[in-house]
Amino acid sequence: MTPTSEPALDSYQRAAIIGGGVIGISWAGLFLARGIKVVINDPRSDIKDLVLAGLEEITPALAELGLPTENLAAGLTFEADLAKAVSGVDIVQENGPERLELKRQIWQTIERHAPAHALLATSTSSIPATAIAKAMEQPERLIVGHPFNPPHLVPLVEIVPGEKTSEATVRQAKAFYAALGKKPQVLRKEIPGFVANRLQSAIFRECVYLVAQGVVTEQELDDIVTSSIGMRWAVGGPFRTFHLGGGPGGLPHFIEHLGRAMEANMWPALGNPTFDDTTVATLVNQANEAFGKGTVEELAAERDRAQIALMRALGETPDTAANHA
Amino acid sequence: MTPTSEPALDSYQRAAIIGGGVIGISWAGLFLARGIKVVINDPRSDIKDLVLAGLEEITPALAELGLPTENLAAGLTFEADLAKAVSGVDIVQENGPERLELKRQIWQTIERHAPAHALLATSTSSIPATAIAKAMEQPERLIVGHPFNPPHLVPLVEIVPGEKTSEATVRQAKAFYAALGKKPQVLRKEIPGFVANRLQSAIFRECVYLVAQGVVTEQELDDIVTSSIGMRWAVGGPFRTFHLGGGPGGLPHFIEHLGRAMEANMWPALGNPTFDDTTVATLVNQANEAFGKGTVEELAAERDRAQIALMRALGETPDTAANHA
Repeated sequence: MTPTSEPALDSYQRAAIIGGGVIGISWAGLFLARGIKVVINDPRSDIKDLVLAGLEEITPALAELGLPTENLAAGLTFEADLAKAVSGVDIVQENGPERLELKRQIWQTIERHAPAHALLATSTSSIPATAIAKAMEQPERLIVGHPFNPPHLVPLVEIVPGEKTSEATVRQAKAFYAALGKKPQVLRKEIPGFVANRLQSAIFRECVYLVAQGVVTEQELDDIVTSSIGMRWAVGGPFRTFHLGGGPGGLPHFIEHLGRAMEANMWPALGNPTFDDTTVATLVNQANEAFGKGTVEELAAERDRAQIALMRALGETPDTAANHA
Repeated sequence: MTPTSEPALDSYQRAAIIGGGVIGISWAGLFLARGIKVVINDPRSDIKDLVLAGLEEITPALAELGLPTENLAAGLTFEADLAKAVSGVDIVQENGPERLELKRQIWQTIERHAPAHALLATSTSSIPATAIAKAMEQPERLIVGHPFNPPHLVPLVEIVPGEKTSEATVRQAKAFYAALGKKPQVLRKEIPGFVANRLQSAIFRECVYLVAQGVVTEQELDDIVTSSIGMRWAVGGPFRTFHLGGGPGGLPHFIEHLGRAMEANMWPALGNPTFDDTTVATLVNQANEAFGKGTVEELAAERDRAQIALMRALGETPDTAANHA
């Protein structure tokens, strides 16, 4: 059942992870479990302890996904000098702070020192590749590879080419993340927040409104979501769901009837909440009540176990997916 | 593994299902599989054929849920006279057309002829109990029991009391749907669209916008959702997800940082699409391309199987849930 490396991963022997925070550690763990040597570049003096502790924390989830986790740290090194860190690697995955000027500096250094064949990807959730690449001599090489947190677990990677990103880079990124066992999706246009975070933001606005209005508590709203739309959207997205909700006429019938009613009656009635003091106090109090019994780490581990059970049931863990292939 | 009836269901021997459409048939199938005799009231002359065909269609899903499905139709009768249909039943579940005047007439008849102990619930997705009950002599007895389609499969039932609904009715409804194996959630206020449909409507607005803008196709957007937020929200709702996304500081930390950034930058940037001719043409063409290969029935059966596999993995099918209890 333990998957071996995909053939397409053979050309990825070494990776540089720029920034060893939560996202960087998660990428590092996944890369290592897939047999890729990882060098971490991070200016913090205690980075080694932080990364090793973080790796230990995510190892159970990697193991439950069916990935090999013995001696993960054996393939791990640290290099505080960015130019040295990226020399000789096959992929650079950058997870620095979300500040444009800083990212531009980082990428100017990377493009001068990384090998010509290396895949150059930024995990940014908010800065378009076009903006970063303006400061680069080889803007065709930079691409956004935006994971959904945590990258070692959630399948989605949004690949967002900048205006000057080459087709070859897009193909390279897509092939790499797919070989890594992720579900990469190439966006056709740069847009702030990309897709998943925009959708998340749209629904969260209404969530905040409904709690602020006293229609439901946070816990009640979460229970409503897990027992209805969450379950639905884990097995089919919104369009497929509404296609099936349209009866034999499918989505066209849905749009003509329920869609137009939604546009006329529901969309204008959706809430526009703000994080004012009263709302924040309500949200914080209810969060303490609903989630305050365990630490965030315990709750996250519990969530990850449920998530992996779900992925396994749908044939989407690396080992079950290998059986499907 | 086959669950026996919950003790709380013992007092529900007979149910009247008013309206034998898709929702009515689904309720009927679930009631019958739970050992409740069902009488269907529907004015259509071919209602018997329609209901029997519909029952046959959902039987595989009921069986996969671990419910007994032998001889389901043995407990089924039809009665075109509403007053007669509801006499002697323990619960009335009404699924008539979404027209206030019609529902008022129906409920005036029901309250006069249903036994005093019977639970009186409407499946309405859009009409508040308060509005229907204005025409009733016993408004304290009416409650919304709004399922998420299809009721035999998706766990959620939104229970929405009207202004005059009694506490006893709320308790009765909650106990009944829970005993039936559903996950009932009582809303604290009446609000148009209740909760699940408002959330669905909020995200769908952004989905339509992103497809209309050419950022992704319908299929690509669905793939993004299933591999990220859908998967997340099947195991924990939006608030729990963002609580865990806030790191050790939880939701309070999330709101202070990412939440405020969302309010400032993302919410104002969300789309306001309309179903104009160009948008509808795009949506219909992409739906044909993405979903046109199978019939809606085939795709729905496939979705239901995946859904049940997911529920089983999370211990939420009637048989696995019984093991947890």
